Amino acid sequence: MPDLSVISICGSLRKGSYNRIVMNLLPGYAPAGLKITEAPSFADFPIYNADIQNSTGFPAPVQRLAEAVRAADGVIFVSPEYNFSIPGGLKNALDWVSRMPNQPFAGKPIALISAAAGILGGGRMQYDLRRCMIFLDAITMNKPEIFIGNAPARIDDKTGQIKDEQTIGFIKQQLEAFAKFIVEHGPKR
Amino acid sequence: MPDLSVISICGSLRKGSYNRIVMNLLPGYAPAGLKITEAPSFADFPIYNADIQNSTGFPAPVQRLAEAVRAADGVIFVSPEYNFSIPGGLKNALDWVSRMPNQPFAGKPIALISAAAGILGGGRMQYDLRRCMIFLDAITMNKPEIFIGNAPARIDDKTGQIKDEQTIGFIKQQLEAFAKFIVEHGPKR
Amino acid sequence: MPDLSVISICGSLRKGSYNRIVMNLLPGYAPAGLKITEAPSFADFPIYNADIQNSTGFPAPVQRLAEAVRAADGVIFVSPEYNFSIPGGLKNALDWVSRMPNQPFAGKPIALISAAAGILGGGRMQYDLRRCMIFLDAITMNKPEIFIGNAPARIDDKTGQIKDEQTIGFIKQQLEAFAKFIVEHGPKR
Amino acid sequence: MPDLSVISICGSLRKGSYNRIVMNLLPGYAPAGLKITEAPSFADFPIYNADIQNSTGFPAPVQRLAEAVRAADGVIFVSPEYNFSIPGGLKNALDWVSRMPNQPFAGKPIALISAAAGILGGGRMQYDLRRCMIFLDAITMNKPEIFIGNAPARIDDKTGQIKDEQTIGFIKQQLEAFAKFIVEHGPKR
Repeated sequence: MPDLSVISICGSLRKGSYNRIVMNLLPGYAPAGLKITEAPSFADFPIYNADIQNSTGFPAPVQRLAEAVRAADGVIFVSPEYNFSIPGGLKNALDWVSRMPNQPFAGKPIALISAAAGILGGGRMQYDLRRCMIFLDAITMNKPEIFIGNAPARIDDKTGQIKDEQTIGFIKQQLEAFAKFIVEHGPKR
Repeated sequence: MPDLSVISICGSLRKGSYNRIVMNLLPGYAPAGLKITEAPSFADFPIYNADIQNSTGFPAPVQRLAEAVRAADGVIFVSPEYNFSIPGGLKNALDWVSRMPNQPFAGKPIALISAAAGILGGGRMQYDLRRCMIFLDAITMNKPEIFIGNAPARIDDKTGQIKDEQTIGFIKQQLEAFAKFIVEHGPKR
Repeated sequence: MPDLSVISICGSLRKGSYNRIVMNLLPGYAPAGLKITEAPSFADFPIYNADIQNSTGFPAPVQRLAEAVRAADGVIFVSPEYNFSIPGGLKNALDWVSRMPNQPFAGKPIALISAAAGILGGGRMQYDLRRCMIFLDAITMNKPEIFIGNAPARIDDKTGQIKDEQTIGFIKQQLEAFAKFIVEHGPKR
Repeated sequence: MPDLSVISICGSLRKGSYNRIVMNLLPGYAPAGLKITEAPSFADFPIYNADIQNSTGFPAPVQRLAEAVRAADGVIFVSPEYNFSIPGGLKNALDWVSRMPNQPFAGKPIALISAAAGILGGGRMQYDLRRCMIFLDAITMNKPEIFIGNAPARIDDKTGQIKDEQTIGFIKQQLEAFAKFIVEHGPKR
C-alpha cells in the first residue's frame, strides 16, 4: 500500500468541540502509511457571495483550503449536526471551495464522522453532506459509518480523549477501510 | 382576515440573484392584508462559533435578524440551492438565530420558494430547509410548493421582472395560501 | 378537550416486531380522551400497479385502510427502517391509499414513532415518511420525535413490554402532545 | 473495454409507464459492449414479512431477482417517484433481495434514471434510492444524473419513443459513463 496523505475538516469552530477532539485524535488511530493533517480553517471565510468572487476574487483562506483539498489523497469530515443539517460554516466553506476553477473535490475520496450529544449522533447531517458530495463528484465511502451519539458519555472534553473503546475501534476500522478505499476508488496514480 | 406582516429572507447575497429578484417582487404579488418586508441581512454574520457566543454574546446583526423573525407573523425563504443543499450563509444565519434565547422560529409559519438555473429548481435545498424547521419547531406550509427551475428563461435579471405568467400565478397562489395558513396554524392572537 | 379517535399503522408485518409491540402498547399510554386503534392491515395489498387500479378498481383491503384513515382524527405510524428508508410494504400501502378519490391523508394530523436495533432508531425512515406526508398534505407533528434505538435493550419481545421507563415517558409525552396537536391543527369540527 | 452485462429494474408496473418506455429503449442507446436486459419482475413479490422468510424461505420471484442482480455487472434503476419517495413496490423488492444471504447489491455499480410528469422529474426518489444503496454497500455513480421532468412532453407513450433529442443524448452519455464506471469502480475481474 502506498503512503497516503489525507486532510481532516472539522465542522465546528468551538475549541472544546467533541468533533474537534475526535479530529485531533485521528492521527493516533490511523493505520501505518495513512497520514492525517488538519485542513486550513474556514473560520475567516466571508459568507459566500458571487459578487465578492467576481470583484476581488477568491479570499486567501478559501484558496488555502482549496489547495489543501486538491493536494490531499482524501478528505475526512468530522462534524456536528446543527439544526438537523450541515453546520452553516462548513457548508459555506464547501460553497466557496466548490467555485474554485478545477473544482477540488472532483474524484476525491471522502469519509465522514460525526459526534453529537443526541442519540442520532449527527446522522441527518451526514446524509446531507453525502448529497453535496454527489454534486461535487467526490467519491464517498459507504461504510463503516460512524455516528458518535451521546457524545458526552463517550468523549472526555477535559482530557481530550475518547473514553469508549468501542468508538475507538470503529474509528480505527473506518480509517483502515478508508486507506483501502482511496487505493481502490481514488484517482489513479 | 387580520392584517399580517411577514418577512422574507433571501438565501443569496448576490445583487443580481434570481432569488433576490423574486423576493423583491413578492410585495407586489401579495394579497390585500399581507405585508412582506425584507429581513435584516446576514451578510455580516461571522461563521457560527459557540466560543464567540459565550465570550462576546450574539453579534448585533444576529440580534437584528432574530428580532425580525420574532416580530413577524411568518417567514418566507427565497433561496437558491448550493451544492445540492442549503446555502451555507443562510444555514449559518439559522444556526446563529436558533441559539438565541426564546428561540425565534418556534411556532412560526414558514413558506419556501426557490429559483435555480437547473431543472430541479432548488428542490433538494427546500427539503433540507424543511427538516431544519422541524428542529426549530416552526410550522412549514405544505403546498403550493414553488420550484422555479430554468430560472434564466423565466426571470429577466436586466429588468428585475418575472417573464413567465405561470410562475407569477404560482407565487400569488402561494402567498394567498400562506396568509390563510398563518391564520389557521400560526400562534393564536 | 374533545374525545379523539386515532389509528396506528405498523410498518412491520412480523408478529414479534419491536414496532408492533410498541404499537400494541400505545392505547395503555394514551391520555384520557385519546382512543388508539390498529388500522386494517396492508399485508394483502398487491404491489401498486395503476393498471390494476384502472381495470378492477381499488382492492378491498386498500378501501378498508383508506376508510379507516378518513374516519380517524389522526394517524400514528410506528415503523422500522428498512435499508435506510421506509419499509416497502408500508410505502406500497401509502401509494395505494394516496390514489383513492378524496385523498384520505389530506389535512390529517400525523405522529411518528420508530424502533430499531441500530443506534439511529429509524431516523432516516422518519424523514422520508415526513416528506411523503408533505405530498399528501397531511399535517405532521414536529415534536417530540421518538427514535427507539437499541430496541432489544429497551423492549422485551418475550413479554411484549417496554423495559425502559424513559422510553415509556417519551411515548406518553408524545401522545399527550399529539392530542393537543390534533385539536390545534386538525380539521375544524 | 470488456463486454459488460447489466440489468435494468423498472419502478413502475404499469404497462404504459413513461419509465418502462425509457427502460425498454435503453438497449438501443447503449454503447458497444454494454448489454442491458430487463430484470425479472417484482410484481408477484409478497409484502416483505420476516415471518414468511423464516417459515417458508425466500419466494421464487425474490430468488430470481436476487440471482439476476448477483450475475449482473451493474444495475440501472428506471423509476417514477410516488408520493415524494421510492415506489413502495420497488422498495419492497429491495427489502426482500437485501435479506438474501450473500447480499446481492454489495459492491454492485448502480445508475439511476427517473421520469415524471412533474418538473422535478423524480429527484426526491433518486436521493432516497441512493441512500438505500449506501446501506446495501452498492457503488452508485454520481453523474450524469437524469431526471426526465415533464415526461408527457418528452416521451410518446403511443409510439414508445423518446421525442426529445436532448433527453436521448443525456441517456447515451449516462450509459457510456456507466460502462466506464463499472470498469473503474466495479468488482475486480
